[in-house]
Amino acid sequence: MPKEGVSIQVIRRLPRYYRYLSELESQGVEKISSNKLAAVMNSTASQIRQDLNCFGGFGQQGYGYAVAGLREEIGRILGLDRTHNMILIGAGNLGRAIATHLNFEQLGFHLTAIFEKDERLIGTMLRGVRVMTDDAIEDYVKKNDVDTAVLAMPKDAVSKMIDKLYSCGIRSYWNFSHYDIAKVYDDVIVENVHLSDSLMTLCYRINEKNTDT
Amino acid sequence: MPKEGVSIQVIRRLPRYYRYLSELESQGVEKISSNKLAAVMNSTASQIRQDLNCFGGFGQQGYGYAVAGLREEIGRILGLDRTHNMILIGAGNLGRAIATHLNFEQLGFHLTAIFEKDERLIGTMLRGVRVMTDDAIEDYVKKNDVDTAVLAMPKDAVSKMIDKLYSCGIRSYWNFSHYDIAKVYDDVIVENVHLSDSLMTLCYRINEKNTDT
Repeated sequence: MPKEGVSIQVIRRLPRYYRYLSELESQGVEKISSNKLAAVMNSTASQIRQDLNCFGGFGQQGYGYAVAGLREEIGRILGLDRTHNMILIGAGNLGRAIATHLNFEQLGFHLTAIFEKDERLIGTMLRGVRVMTDDAIEDYVKKNDVDTAVLAMPKDAVSKMIDKLYSCGIRSYWNFSHYDIAKVYDDVIVENVHLSDSLMTLCYRINEKNTDT
Repeated sequence: MPKEGVSIQVIRRLPRYYRYLSELESQGVEKISSNKLAAVMNSTASQIRQDLNCFGGFGQQGYGYAVAGLREEIGRILGLDRTHNMILIGAGNLGRAIATHLNFEQLGFHLTAIFEKDERLIGTMLRGVRVMTDDAIEDYVKKNDVDTAVLAMPKDAVSKMIDKLYSCGIRSYWNFSHYDIAKVYDDVIVENVHLSDSLMTLCYRINEKNTDT
């Protein structure tokens, strides 16, 4: 179990450990030293030891880390062994990409329903789930155990949708819009994915490099 | 112009300033104090003053920030006023979402070509750009001025593709795969978008909250 007050920076590195360890395991690697793990991950051995010590440390002096065991333990810390039911709001290009691109089941989530306001998309299938009308959200959430909503819709549409989702009891959001949910409700968990911010940062770094040379 | 050694943390906050200032401008707001900007952005006035001071500071004592001017200046720092030609590799669900979802032109990029290996997709149109076969990449990049590639393909496919793109001279990547480009080439600029890491972090935070209560 994590010690009290593990920083969000450390938490945010755990998925990366999980990814690399999964890959090492699939390559048949059984144990690895912190030095070798650091080399694989483009990190430092001291960073790795420090991060993993936040959760009690898993390495054995002179042996290194047991890959499968460490992967499983990090998965447990992340909570990937439990499953949260999730609904997707928006079945346009972005919603479709999210629904089809990710292995939710391996990431702690189960996509149970998809909602969309564009009538042409209602009734179509995505990842084996039928797309339903937006009007059915409240009813669906009341009858089913849902704790997370993925918001794949424009900012303006989210501002209208969020009150409905909140009043249905949904407190966890994976938000692809620029709408600032945490500013409106303070008892929610929000992970924002701001694709345009990432692209603007890339733009800055290209220009900075060009100026250097 | 930015002072020497502005940290990547500050750089990563600039797109967020740019977004909020764009919105304020579109709402007709002409000037804003650091306190009010902090309230809008869920930040602190001192953080804002500190960040903007890295670039010479833009506020006037007792007046605040001129919204349009500051937005324009941050856009210039980010380099959004210049345009980089960009190609997209992968026209599957993810590639399609990227191509249709983002206003590249406002973010410093121009999407000039799309490449795909799946023959069924070749010849289709995306954002007014015809999808071409992967085999045409080298020829296209040689004849056109391209500096950035978006990688919307699985990790395994990237490992085969990256040598080709690098040898064509492309040094800037917007990478949606888990392939670690910077580990293979050290003179490249890479912005990674790890959607699954974001989702795992959300999973952790939900479980952490549930344990708390």
